[in-house]
Amino acid sequence: MASFSGIKNTLLAEQVEEQLYEYITKLPLKAGDKLPNEFKLAEMFGVGRSTVREAVKLLVSRNVLETRRGSGTYVKDLVPTDLDPLNLRNVEDKVTLAMNLVDLRLILEPGIAELAAYNATDEEIEHLKDLCDTVEYKIEHDLYYIQDDIDFHTYIARCSKNKVVEQIISILETAVLMFVNLTHRRLRQETIITHRAITKSIAEHDPVGARSAMTMHISYNRAAIKEIYDARNRELENQEQ
Amino acid sequence: MASFSGIKNTLLAEQVEEQLYEYITKLPLKAGDKLPNEFKLAEMFGVGRSTVREAVKLLVSRNVLETRRGSGTYVKDLVPTDLDPLNLRNVEDKVTLAMNLVDLRLILEPGIAELAAYNATDEEIEHLKDLCDTVEYKIEHDLYYIQDDIDFHTYIARCSKNKVVEQIISILETAVLMFVNLTHRRLRQETIITHRAITKSIAEHDPVGARSAMTMHISYNRAAIKEIYDARNRELENQEQ
Repeated sequence: MASFSGIKNTLLAEQVEEQLYEYITKLPLKAGDKLPNEFKLAEMFGVGRSTVREAVKLLVSRNVLETRRGSGTYVKDLVPTDLDPLNLRNVEDKVTLAMNLVDLRLILEPGIAELAAYNATDEEIEHLKDLCDTVEYKIEHDLYYIQDDIDFHTYIARCSKNKVVEQIISILETAVLMFVNLTHRRLRQETIITHRAITKSIAEHDPVGARSAMTMHISYNRAAIKEIYDARNRELENQEQ
Repeated sequence: MASFSGIKNTLLAEQVEEQLYEYITKLPLKAGDKLPNEFKLAEMFGVGRSTVREAVKLLVSRNVLETRRGSGTYVKDLVPTDLDPLNLRNVEDKVTLAMNLVDLRLILEPGIAELAAYNATDEEIEHLKDLCDTVEYKIEHDLYYIQDDIDFHTYIARCSKNKVVEQIISILETAVLMFVNLTHRRLRQETIITHRAITKSIAEHDPVGARSAMTMHISYNRAAIKEIYDARNRELENQEQ
């Protein structure tokens, strides 16, 4: 069994792991970039070198860092393995991936919105309204709202009261954020209007309304992605001729 | 870059990893059981000790084995982390998990069968018929057919030509196999009839037929799971009184 101080060190290492990951993604460093040495990192995060070493090990196990003997620590991949359970980082054709993802969302999310309309509690409805307002505010003030958008959809999945649904949606939305994000800044008004319609239907426990509002919301996204997809394919055809 | 012999050793270690995992699951060993020592394993698999060590490391990284210093190698968990991306091993209430999984399948798979009916090639249709026949044969001869059932559903997902769909279905079907398998031996005739109907509709490129046959198939499963779920809940209620 780990001693109490063992547990404390683990928690500290995990905190430093998080800070270190944030440091990498915010700069951002890219694959192949070298990290500052242990002394420097220990100073930056105000911890001992052994904690830094532990944090680096954790990020190595998540495929974010690699240590090269005698040379130092390097960034290997910005997406940790555990945030990419579908292994989408290796898909080369990101436009087709975006189409595949939105098609799957179109199959899944209307049914989930329907379940949410049946099952959401009063408290959950209040929280969903807050999330809807946040996205709206950020869109109107031209702020980065993608993470809030993901939170909105993931929370609807939570309202479905189906744990597997919640996990699958979280995986899909994270994939959209990490690997394809083609419609950002394109569907601002459509997002506001359809998010509101989804929220209203769930709040009124109107399953058919929730299903159709969600269908509409994702259809807007699909149409925008389809335009990009078609344009790309026309370009490829022209190159071949 | 790895040298050629480096690559060869990696491949060999991966083969031994597979054999070792099979050895563990077939006996089966359970969490906490001790593995034979390195010498013995090397002899069993006809490889060197360094290859065994490499294979053990791979299974440690997948959470199947753990090495305790000075004591030996022990089984930690029979399900490798990479086969449990939804982290369902930790769900205690397996009956509710089964309901959640079948509800999600009911939302997803009819839409996927529809896509498969649009997109399956002639070659894929032939293969799907073979898979359907295999399940039927095994059911009629009272053989273990769960893996073949999974293959059937995963192949339909592949026919959809949507890579994300394929991965998600593979995750869900594996979860059904690994964590909840409540309807095995209950729905033999229903499985044969509905699998046939799904296969026929996809072969005829009849999307509406494929959707409704899949809905019927999963509905049979849901009804059987619901019976178990209701009986369990009645029992819990009685205990509380």
